[in-house]
Amino acid sequence: MREVAIIGIGLTPIGEQWDKSLRQIAVEAVIAALKDAGRESVDGIFVGNMLSGILSHQENLGTLIADWMGLHGVEAFKIEAACASGAAAVRLGWMAIASGAMDAVIAMGVEKMADSKMADVTAALATAADADYEADEDISFVGINALIMRRYLYEYGWKHTDFAPFSINVHANAMHNPSARLHERITETDYNQATMIADPINLLDSSPTGDGAAALLLVPAETLRKNGQPIITIAGTASATDTIATHNRREATWLSAAAESARKAYAQAGVGPQDIDLFELHDAFSITAALSLEACGFVEKGQGPRAGLEGEILPIGRIPIATRGGLKARGHPVGATGVYQIAEVVQQLRGEAGDNQVPGAKIGMAQNIGGSGSNIQTHIIKRIV
Amino acid sequence: MREVAIIGIGLTPIGEQWDKSLRQIAVEAVIAALKDAGRESVDGIFVGNMLSGILSHQENLGTLIADWMGLHGVEAFKIEAACASGAAAVRLGWMAIASGAMDAVIAMGVEKMADSKMADVTAALATAADADYEADEDISFVGINALIMRRYLYEYGWKHTDFAPFSINVHANAMHNPSARLHERITETDYNQATMIADPINLLDSSPTGDGAAALLLVPAETLRKNGQPIITIAGTASATDTIATHNRREATWLSAAAESARKAYAQAGVGPQDIDLFELHDAFSITAALSLEACGFVEKGQGPRAGLEGEILPIGRIPIATRGGLKARGHPVGATGVYQIAEVVQQLRGEAGDNQVPGAKIGMAQNIGGSGSNIQTHIIKRIV
Repeated sequence: MREVAIIGIGLTPIGEQWDKSLRQIAVEAVIAALKDAGRESVDGIFVGNMLSGILSHQENLGTLIADWMGLHGVEAFKIEAACASGAAAVRLGWMAIASGAMDAVIAMGVEKMADSKMADVTAALATAADADYEADEDISFVGINALIMRRYLYEYGWKHTDFAPFSINVHANAMHNPSARLHERITETDYNQATMIADPINLLDSSPTGDGAAALLLVPAETLRKNGQPIITIAGTASATDTIATHNRREATWLSAAAESARKAYAQAGVGPQDIDLFELHDAFSITAALSLEACGFVEKGQGPRAGLEGEILPIGRIPIATRGGLKARGHPVGATGVYQIAEVVQQLRGEAGDNQVPGAKIGMAQNIGGSGSNIQTHIIKRIV
Repeated sequence: MREVAIIGIGLTPIGEQWDKSLRQIAVEAVIAALKDAGRESVDGIFVGNMLSGILSHQENLGTLIADWMGLHGVEAFKIEAACASGAAAVRLGWMAIASGAMDAVIAMGVEKMADSKMADVTAALATAADADYEADEDISFVGINALIMRRYLYEYGWKHTDFAPFSINVHANAMHNPSARLHERITETDYNQATMIADPINLLDSSPTGDGAAALLLVPAETLRKNGQPIITIAGTASATDTIATHNRREATWLSAAAESARKAYAQAGVGPQDIDLFELHDAFSITAALSLEACGFVEKGQGPRAGLEGEILPIGRIPIATRGGLKARGHPVGATGVYQIAEVVQQLRGEAGDNQVPGAKIGMAQNIGGSGSNIQTHIIKRIV
């Protein structure tokens, strides 16, 4: 199995890009990643995307992007794993290099959501749930997560306001991220008074969707060893699933697929939670941030909010999370999110995270969550000098 | 790179399965493949599918199928490459085993089409074309292929009736295939008098869609070598793309991605066209069969119909094609088709093709075509004694 390095990253600003099409933002991200690496071609392209068929009437998306990039003839695949599509594309791109089947791969994610009516987007996002036993009951995706948060508050005795630090932290972090959708500091009062969406989840618990594309350029690490430069490698990569319907789980408040994929990624990388310098987690909702921290072993079960209340999640804390704004403030273009997360870890390991730089970061983790925790992809990225 | 063997196949009958849901036919195929191999679990599942989001309001499809199979916690991905989604799932499943990331994989395809209105299916299939520059002009997928066939007749001087042998052959082959959608012999007169769909493509040039699911069980070949039994391996696997829009190609009547992916697959397997005992090609339309034969080196450019007229494509011919009925008569459940093709090669190599058995078949090829030739996956399967 060949070791895989990330030698290029490309990120487009997340937002409502009325003047650009799906293919345009995708191509922008790929060009940026190639330019960052100083390369012009690849053998294949793995495109994480969830909604192009439904919202943009475009499947065969891998082919489209390869074509519009001018990457004539290369292999192309669209990878879908709900909101974890982006990191799933990275995991499969990693396999292409690790197996020796390809020597250079674009692993990317793209989502175009702003062109569609909000009701259509809500219905499209519900396709990540069980169509026959969840979505058919007219529950939305935020509705499912509200049930999870409500149960969590009941089980462990937390109050809603205890989750405020998750939101405040990421809004502060996003201030310095040019790709972020929201650049707006918030206070605890803002959080407590935000409009209720699906009780107990309010507006400031919820990540904004948007248009966005992000790309990574992967190559075998062995070709880079020669010149003694520091390299960034994928030290651990793993995924796992849980039941697609939340109501079929033994515990709705425990992300078993997060725990399992993290366990495998830690083992592959030869590290544990104590070795992780920063954690780009999937804070689609503030409850999801808490559950991810717990499942990956950063805090005890039921103690997620404590990490926020005690300042451990800040850029200077014990386990900095969502250092570039996370889903909540950087934004959540669903099929692209997992690639943004990994690219942000690379920024930190390169020392290019500006005002949010985690000093001396050498090992970062990214966790991308599909469905209500049903498909989870975990990557550990390492800087090797 | 580890060698990969196919140790189980599972096929469901293609048709209008009103009494079964998407998940049910998928699970049927997986159970059949596991049972065929005498196994109960895998590490991951790769699901080829094109239309579940649009037609069944279900994404996160890999997770759903893993869940309903009771394969708790395994990795799961949906792979989309238009009508080549099925073989694309096999190619990526192959990478998972070849890289050492997984030791047992289900690579499958599933499509549920019969529950939807025909106009919705037609619109959904057009998402394989360029949404902004082809589908937006209201051209259907059969329309694009009709333009290709019309140009081909003009370029090379063939008449429409010269394509009759492709259709007659596969209808005869499907008579003995219990999974086939159509069990009906046709004559040259039937072909010539069939209802016109999009001139010059008539009803008997066109493959029927349908509900269907097919699955393969892949494992490392090395674990099977010990007992001296014959094994079936993936000797060559490759894919390539062309422009997504047909009008952007230098030659609309040449499948460059078929030629390129076949070239790579031949090289990997160490064989050439002369070594292939049977070829499960992608006869979505009879013109596509001709173009595939040409691009893969079985006949000269522009001479595809000759292989039919001279009987070379029959089960007893020089290069038997679509031996179990092909897309035209076995049926074309789009995202599942590529897996049916490879499973049918396995049936031939095992000597389990019944009345359509190609005597002494040792090496078979399958080629799965997405879009109007824009994403093409080629596999060479070999029996090793």
